[in-house]
Amino acid sequence: MRTIEWLSDSNTVRLIDQRRLPGRLEYLNIHDAAEMAEAIQTMAIRGAPALGVAGALGLALEAQRDAAKKVGGLRDQLHQAGVVLQSARPTAVNLGWGVQRILAIVDDPATPESQLIERIRAEALAMAEEDVATNLRLAEFGASLIADGDTIVHHCNTGALAAVDWGTALGAIRYAWEHGKKIHLLIDETRPRFQGARLTAWECQQYGIPFEVIPDNAAGYFLHRGDVQKVMFGADRVAANGDVVNKVGTYMLSLAAHADGVPVYPVFPFSTLDLSLASGEQIPIEERAAEEVTAIQFQGEAVYPQGVAVRNPAFDLTPHELVSAWVTERGIIKPPFLLSISQSNYNNASSR
Amino acid sequence: MRTIEWLSDSNTVRLIDQRRLPGRLEYLNIHDAAEMAEAIQTMAIRGAPALGVAGALGLALEAQRDAAKKVGGLRDQLHQAGVVLQSARPTAVNLGWGVQRILAIVDDPATPESQLIERIRAEALAMAEEDVATNLRLAEFGASLIADGDTIVHHCNTGALAAVDWGTALGAIRYAWEHGKKIHLLIDETRPRFQGARLTAWECQQYGIPFEVIPDNAAGYFLHRGDVQKVMFGADRVAANGDVVNKVGTYMLSLAAHADGVPVYPVFPFSTLDLSLASGEQIPIEERAAEEVTAIQFQGEAVYPQGVAVRNPAFDLTPHELVSAWVTERGIIKPPFLLSISQSNYNNASSR
Repeated sequence: MRTIEWLSDSNTVRLIDQRRLPGRLEYLNIHDAAEMAEAIQTMAIRGAPALGVAGALGLALEAQRDAAKKVGGLRDQLHQAGVVLQSARPTAVNLGWGVQRILAIVDDPATPESQLIERIRAEALAMAEEDVATNLRLAEFGASLIADGDTIVHHCNTGALAAVDWGTALGAIRYAWEHGKKIHLLIDETRPRFQGARLTAWECQQYGIPFEVIPDNAAGYFLHRGDVQKVMFGADRVAANGDVVNKVGTYMLSLAAHADGVPVYPVFPFSTLDLSLASGEQIPIEERAAEEVTAIQFQGEAVYPQGVAVRNPAFDLTPHELVSAWVTERGIIKPPFLLSISQSNYNNASSR
Repeated sequence: MRTIEWLSDSNTVRLIDQRRLPGRLEYLNIHDAAEMAEAIQTMAIRGAPALGVAGALGLALEAQRDAAKKVGGLRDQLHQAGVVLQSARPTAVNLGWGVQRILAIVDDPATPESQLIERIRAEALAMAEEDVATNLRLAEFGASLIADGDTIVHHCNTGALAAVDWGTALGAIRYAWEHGKKIHLLIDETRPRFQGARLTAWECQQYGIPFEVIPDNAAGYFLHRGDVQKVMFGADRVAANGDVVNKVGTYMLSLAAHADGVPVYPVFPFSTLDLSLASGEQIPIEERAAEEVTAIQFQGEAVYPQGVAVRNPAFDLTPHELVSAWVTERGIIKPPFLLSISQSNYNNASSR
């Protein structure tokens, strides 16, 4: 089961519609960049690594549209589609990274227009395969930080559903579990969209990993009692100084872990790093529609009074001081990251 | 409109059924201690000050039951009813305080059994009136900490609905607002029962106080941006060293406020203080049923997979180091509280 994949018999993209989980496992078929942008915007697909691949596959779909061939302006059309795709989730750096990697081929004068469609498709499919390989390496590095018997607080969804397969933080936890480490998860339900309660809990049921779901605001209670050994989550963008932008709630969780001396590990592909940003304070935070917060019922009754004003920031910033180590497929690193990677490679090589 | 009141024509207690708000303003009629305990346990009535009065009124109802007169063992029956009432919410110190204040009359050998029913009722009604007077003084002290133009993060519901009238932290905010201070509230929705989104938002709509509701896990985002000047909430139990037990989420909110230098003010009646406890670490934390967390729908779909394990602590502990000042009807105080009160009275007197 893959979260997103290219169907070569129909040249379309099929993805799991994550808005329907955990109630129903349904798929969406996507035919062009506009449909992909809508699937991204409405969060039928989400998760930093998955969004990078979704952006690339969206352009591969767009490249093969009949309309493009007829008007002839394929390169222009792909650039326009790239803007539409990127603006669907402005904070997610991987989405932009996936789109830009395809646009580099579009802009390469060495690529004849006759080969463009095929080359873009090949690149997008390679990115999907790379994502699986990258996440497996991430999982292995992340699992090395997990001790037998750990209780881990996990925020949002960072599993296979957040990527093509495996995912990031939950991939590391799954890897440790499948290699025999006893683990107990406390899963933040992750308001407003409940990715923890809906998606991470559903994944853990598939894998057999023991867990309990908690309201986000209860994590501090368990941390303060000494019940928790690790805090793990993904990342949507990481600045050069190590500041992490991730799903809203990550900051308060990291503060609570730090206050009680529990290590905090973001797990993310290297493509999530934005070394052009000195600090995370410069990263724009997407505020999403109020309906995402208010579209809930509690015990069969509406929770929100009619017309109530709501704020809905989708992400927040976790300052690097609260982070214990940064887990990537290129090693467990610390800022400055480029220096850290070379040392990490040396250490990883020498420890084998 | 009172949250809970004695109807003298029928000798019953009427309370607002807070499980129905904000959709419907409905009342429950309560006839004996068992019904009151059920209303408390199911949170038809909640809020520390309201629970103290509810406990006392529950015993006043029980005292007048026919069954009690027939079997003759009125004093025993009231003690048994007191146990039932107190165990309905084991963490709430005010509930125990309200029950014990009535049981002191029951145990007073100077009270003839023939006068017991009348004396208990008079005491319980006096406690309801005291609650309003106490909360008005609380409100005045709390309002003195609020500056014109403040944005305040507020957790749970601490308004009129948490008391007979006025309430604690929200009472202070309402008092400041009614005395001309411009205020903006960011209301934590307060998972799992959404007292912020359902009750505090509804109250603020009645008062005309401008507000926005936020997911609990987003408070850190607004605090870190510098958008917030104060954090205010109530308390369910306060230890001698100033540790505060309050609605789950208070601890993480206080950590985030403290990290960004924003003052943290619990507002509570003096009866919430438990000076017999050196620290809050000894206070038992009630864990409530999983259904309270899982009984939600998001965009019309079930959020929680069938049979998923959930943890649901109702309260958490905010260590005194995170608290800026403790607001009571006896002044704005700090531990050691008894010393602080005498100084506070002196300061309050000299500042007038």
